[in-house]
Amino acid sequence: MGILVVGSVALDSVKTPFGSRDDVLGGAATYFSIAASYFTDVSIVGVVGEDFPEEHVTLLQKLGIDLSGMERQKGNTFRWKGEYSFDMNTRTTLDTQLNVFAEFSPKLLPAHRSIDYLFLANIDPDLQRSVLEQMKRPRLVGCDTMNYWIENKRASLLKTLAMIDLLVINDAETRELAGEPNLIKAARRIISWGPKILVIKRGEYGALMFNSDSIFVIPAFPLEEVLDPTGAGDSFAGGLMGYLAAVGATDDSAIRKAIVVGTVMASFNVMDFGPKVLADLTYPEIEDRYRQFRKIAFFEDITGKVDRV
Amino acid sequence: MGILVVGSVALDSVKTPFGSRDDVLGGAATYFSIAASYFTDVSIVGVVGEDFPEEHVTLLQKLGIDLSGMERQKGNTFRWKGEYSFDMNTRTTLDTQLNVFAEFSPKLLPAHRSIDYLFLANIDPDLQRSVLEQMKRPRLVGCDTMNYWIENKRASLLKTLAMIDLLVINDAETRELAGEPNLIKAARRIISWGPKILVIKRGEYGALMFNSDSIFVIPAFPLEEVLDPTGAGDSFAGGLMGYLAAVGATDDSAIRKAIVVGTVMASFNVMDFGPKVLADLTYPEIEDRYRQFRKIAFFEDITGKVDRV
Repeated sequence: MGILVVGSVALDSVKTPFGSRDDVLGGAATYFSIAASYFTDVSIVGVVGEDFPEEHVTLLQKLGIDLSGMERQKGNTFRWKGEYSFDMNTRTTLDTQLNVFAEFSPKLLPAHRSIDYLFLANIDPDLQRSVLEQMKRPRLVGCDTMNYWIENKRASLLKTLAMIDLLVINDAETRELAGEPNLIKAARRIISWGPKILVIKRGEYGALMFNSDSIFVIPAFPLEEVLDPTGAGDSFAGGLMGYLAAVGATDDSAIRKAIVVGTVMASFNVMDFGPKVLADLTYPEIEDRYRQFRKIAFFEDITGKVDRV
Repeated sequence: MGILVVGSVALDSVKTPFGSRDDVLGGAATYFSIAASYFTDVSIVGVVGEDFPEEHVTLLQKLGIDLSGMERQKGNTFRWKGEYSFDMNTRTTLDTQLNVFAEFSPKLLPAHRSIDYLFLANIDPDLQRSVLEQMKRPRLVGCDTMNYWIENKRASLLKTLAMIDLLVINDAETRELAGEPNLIKAARRIISWGPKILVIKRGEYGALMFNSDSIFVIPAFPLEEVLDPTGAGDSFAGGLMGYLAAVGATDDSAIRKAIVVGTVMASFNVMDFGPKVLADLTYPEIEDRYRQFRKIAFFEDITGKVDRV
């Protein structure tokens, strides 16, 4: 019941109101796989350059993440540089150097073609389909995307959406993809294009889930210290898919729990720069925060007749 | 177990992306009392002008709201005019005519002085204290305020906060009042100034509650049609206080349920312009939406050991 994740492995330079760091381990596939590694076997398909530090390889391997599909190519690793606003809700990309990621064209190893769970992180929707087509149809295919593909490769993206099970995007992407400001209406439209499940990430405001017959809504885990939101969405998706793969179920109850697990993993991730906190967890810490979250979100049924009429 | 609410009764002119209305029934005390009227007896202390339409008086009286403390004075009723942004999350005040509300100086009728629950809607903190001082100490005092008083009458506002039990403000007000961007830290600071309970309204993102030993967080009720957010915060507070007064409890469990009731009342209110939907409810509709909300926010405990290590 492992997961194959295809996406970016990067070196990030990040500035937030609480400090800045240069060349920390980043990328969607990285955050995703670290979060998922607590629940199931994870294999990364990606590419890094000659400059990719050995310590990052060691960190990922220590977590049991399979790097046999992570090519090392001539040139430099994908680099992203960004800055967050005072309230951390908006970020500005200051610089993007695709480097070896520019020519990324994933070719799956035979051992990876029959993995049960696949997550297509945010890459060109053409590449997402090419990966999917190399596989024996996985049990569950999850997918992310971004405004760039919505605006510039819409037709290809719609083809990809028709082939996947679970779409994990943020609220702005949901509205833009559907061309509809109301999230419920937007979700219904997107579901009609293929994905059976749509999970909408709302950053510090939590998440929403839509499937054909159910809506689920949860807030984020309230935190006293948020130092760096980078990777929150990917660690959310990693926790979510990791939990689903671990329990081997995709019913409504499992999906809801998986979304809470994702919320928990994202809440750990934002507590420091880079994937440091996320990579240093123990499973009991994850369970503890899940149960803490249950307590702070709990309320009883409306009791008795308080109606005055 | 009735509630006395002191605050504005107004005529609003509102423009949203979905239309506009002129001179609809508005004001904090109005929305609050309509929402609370489903749970307990409500008395309004306020002021209107000679132009206040008789149909609005009839609507409030039909809901059993006691208007004996609503003075009618020479001149015009308080008028507010505002416009909402495309996503409804920000609004611009286009015009404010205080009219008779400018000289509002509430003098309580003897019958109102011993009411058990008091809500001080958003008015000058000096007036809030003058009302409280006219009363036999109520069982629970709730209070709202706004950026204007935080910026211009801070010392007076802090005196009021030292005398109340429950503060219901939005997230921006919380940050500004505490001078702290992190909501948990801000809440802790405000609690140390007097209020035993702080409820933070986050609009379409729900609410947070803090007391000395508990945090509660809930999303808003997801809606397909939001036509006009005016009065959402006041109908939230009305549902919250109304439920607390009805059950006669202020323990953590009751407060959580009361916040959900507030969320439900606000969700009805935003479905149309003015307090129309809110005023036309039946109690079973309120219970139904509460239970619907429980379902969409429900998730089970993390089960078994899914840890791969």
